[in-house]
Amino acid sequence: MLTHEYQARDGAHHLHPFTDFKALADQGSRVITHGEGVYIHDSEGYRILDGMAGLWCMNLGYGRRELVEAATAQLEQLPYYNTFFKTTHPPAVRLAEKLCALAPPHIQHVFFTGSGSEANDTVLRMVRRYWALKGRPEKHWVIGRENGYHGSTLAGMSLGGMAPMHGQGGPCVPGIAHIRQPYWFGEGRLDEAHGMSPEAFGQACAAALDDKIRELGAENVAAFIAEPVQGAGGAIMPPESYWPAVKAVLAKYDILLVADEVICGFGRLGEWFGSQHYGLEPDLMPIAKGLSSGYLPIGGVLVGERVAETLIEEGGEFFHGFTYSGHPACAAVALRNLELLEAEGIVDRVRDDLGPYLAERWASLADHPIVGEARSLGLMGALELVADKATGQRFDKSLAAGNLCRDLCFTSGLVMRSVGDTMIIAPPLVIRREEIDELVELARHALDETARRLTRTAQTQEEPSA
Amino acid sequence: MLTHEYQARDGAHHLHPFTDFKALADQGSRVITHGEGVYIHDSEGYRILDGMAGLWCMNLGYGRRELVEAATAQLEQLPYYNTFFKTTHPPAVRLAEKLCALAPPHIQHVFFTGSGSEANDTVLRMVRRYWALKGRPEKHWVIGRENGYHGSTLAGMSLGGMAPMHGQGGPCVPGIAHIRQPYWFGEGRLDEAHGMSPEAFGQACAAALDDKIRELGAENVAAFIAEPVQGAGGAIMPPESYWPAVKAVLAKYDILLVADEVICGFGRLGEWFGSQHYGLEPDLMPIAKGLSSGYLPIGGVLVGERVAETLIEEGGEFFHGFTYSGHPACAAVALRNLELLEAEGIVDRVRDDLGPYLAERWASLADHPIVGEARSLGLMGALELVADKATGQRFDKSLAAGNLCRDLCFTSGLVMRSVGDTMIIAPPLVIRREEIDELVELARHALDETARRLTRTAQTQEEPSA
Repeated sequence: MLTHEYQARDGAHHLHPFTDFKALADQGSRVITHGEGVYIHDSEGYRILDGMAGLWCMNLGYGRRELVEAATAQLEQLPYYNTFFKTTHPPAVRLAEKLCALAPPHIQHVFFTGSGSEANDTVLRMVRRYWALKGRPEKHWVIGRENGYHGSTLAGMSLGGMAPMHGQGGPCVPGIAHIRQPYWFGEGRLDEAHGMSPEAFGQACAAALDDKIRELGAENVAAFIAEPVQGAGGAIMPPESYWPAVKAVLAKYDILLVADEVICGFGRLGEWFGSQHYGLEPDLMPIAKGLSSGYLPIGGVLVGERVAETLIEEGGEFFHGFTYSGHPACAAVALRNLELLEAEGIVDRVRDDLGPYLAERWASLADHPIVGEARSLGLMGALELVADKATGQRFDKSLAAGNLCRDLCFTSGLVMRSVGDTMIIAPPLVIRREEIDELVELARHALDETARRLTRTAQTQEEPSA
Repeated sequence: MLTHEYQARDGAHHLHPFTDFKALADQGSRVITHGEGVYIHDSEGYRILDGMAGLWCMNLGYGRRELVEAATAQLEQLPYYNTFFKTTHPPAVRLAEKLCALAPPHIQHVFFTGSGSEANDTVLRMVRRYWALKGRPEKHWVIGRENGYHGSTLAGMSLGGMAPMHGQGGPCVPGIAHIRQPYWFGEGRLDEAHGMSPEAFGQACAAALDDKIRELGAENVAAFIAEPVQGAGGAIMPPESYWPAVKAVLAKYDILLVADEVICGFGRLGEWFGSQHYGLEPDLMPIAKGLSSGYLPIGGVLVGERVAETLIEEGGEFFHGFTYSGHPACAAVALRNLELLEAEGIVDRVRDDLGPYLAERWASLADHPIVGEARSLGLMGALELVADKATGQRFDKSLAAGNLCRDLCFTSGLVMRSVGDTMIIAPPLVIRREEIDELVELARHALDETARRLTRTAQTQEEPSA
């Protein structure tokens, strides 16, 4: 089929996620046809360096024969069976055991789901059930964060703090509150007259959690949910002061911690779980994406012993689960994926070699005229686009600078995602040093081109502050 | 690995869906190792006829090499890419086109999800968004049914009417109401002094919808959601009078119809969609399960032109979607599955041959002393267990007759599921006549054994009414 034929059919029948359906149908989708290593290819013969690892998930990259073989072998053996009615199957057992071996020692149980969204949805059920079993059903409020992302089920989007999502689909799930995010460049730096140091800002954000808990009443708050590093919100690494202060607040009020590891898990930050990078011991960890390197859909919730013991010993039947919970083929692929990540020392390499290398190369973009900040951790990075480097003033929203830069990246052979005017990357963990060089070069090229196209407007905006 | 080793690891780490974790860990899971046709096999070498098609999903049965090959080929080509940022890929396009060709003519669009739960969750978003775009945001209530099942996300379980699920996990999603179910044996027959005819009961259930709409105010009601035949609720076929009367009510008040086709879709009732059997033209149809015969996880929402046109033309960006929406490997398997269902004439065979054959054989169980009703439609069937055949009086709940019968079935080589004291089946659509004979024979054997074990108690219960 030719590109325009795919586009016509796609436009006629396929409603895409997070998309303006009409605009896309008019414009036509780009058709991705195959992948190899860190590269994807489209139907017009272009090769593109996938700086987003699909959607934060292709940790092992494209074209891994071992994962295909794992899927094929399991599909031939037992393509599906459920785990509802006192049955199990080898891949679910093996994956559960492997996950618990890789997770921090206080985590010994997993509940499988089909996705990260379903995992976050499950978490809400679990924390409320936990406190109800403890005789404290009123302790059911969950606190999330503005601009946090916890999937797209109604419960997941309610836990998350994405304003546009909250604006569609009717009333959110009750009993969920949000506090400010630890986003120094976007907020902390602009606080008060002359901005706040990252250190002080991290403390302030933790204090906001304390305030919210006291506002709701600690006796009413079940859990705090957060990504170790905000992913979809814009690859936002919190100030170093943030997590220790948050931990102290949660301990003070006996509130559960849910660390959403859907993006940070499985090596992204140079540890098996992002929580380990920040020294967290979460009660629950939703997982997905890197769990199977995206080859097949699978998610789950890693359940710490505090919650697990109560659900097991006191819970009776837990009325929740999904047809595809622990799907055999998906579990087999996830297991093989974890084995390969481990055998090839990929997580350590991200921490010790690729992460530091990316940090150094990525930081070199900080000198670009439209870059206000370049930050990275492990293999996740962000660039803040600004109209005025000195003041950090943003481009006028109407210019949609981020989207422009993203489209220019794609055209020149790089997938880099835009979140407003924050450009973000999270390449496959198997990326090589020379591919990191190429990624940074392509990014710089796109920044140049973005700047050139925005020059006139940017200059106009700079004049008042010059 | 030996059975007891699997069981030990499973009990130590794996939290099963809809399970009493402690009871299962104590008892040990049955380990399903492989499947072929309509049979599964366990780690102890037993062969079991899978009367539930996995979990209502293995429409093509186990061991279909063509589906494995479709998965393998796509995984080798492009194991994953997202469809969020103006991209698509061949399997998603082809599947979207194929689904719209198979769906009723007024349906020309599909939104992909990873599961039926995510599809039902999406539906809630879509119906509310539709009315908001029509300038009627207050029209956001959705009416579901008691004992209906629409998945296990918080929104899905809120749409559903499963009381035990509502009792766990804290507040449900606001703006959802429920009406009574069209369950003649369970409710209609017991209504009023001497029971109601199925015909009159179907009318009464539709009248309950009318009442609820007027109670909420038609100007506040967005949609009615229902399974054409209730699946998880107990394979409940509504009286023939029900759907025509419901259609008339919805038309009177201009309320959208959502037909949950997760179980009924793809041939289960002898049509591509259960809605076609009942002459419905739903605005939205959540799908999953049979869509891929469960070989890989995939779901979606088929969107009728009324809703699609509004979302496309007036909606702007729809802020919703899932990482695995339209996953390439899952879409490729679903496409091949649909092609095979079509090429092998399986849907017609269910309607014209296997469905009627099952109906005849299944009805023969109605003479069994503990069977109060035997009903079936297409390849879905139910038996109502009763202590007293004459009066239809149930067994004492403490006997858990359904669970006993289910466990006895499993031991003697048949998967039949229990919903309370309703036994249900939904075998793979590729089942042969002689396998239907075997299924019915095994069911009769399990009924005999169940009756034998319950005899003393059943007799005691019969005495007062004898």
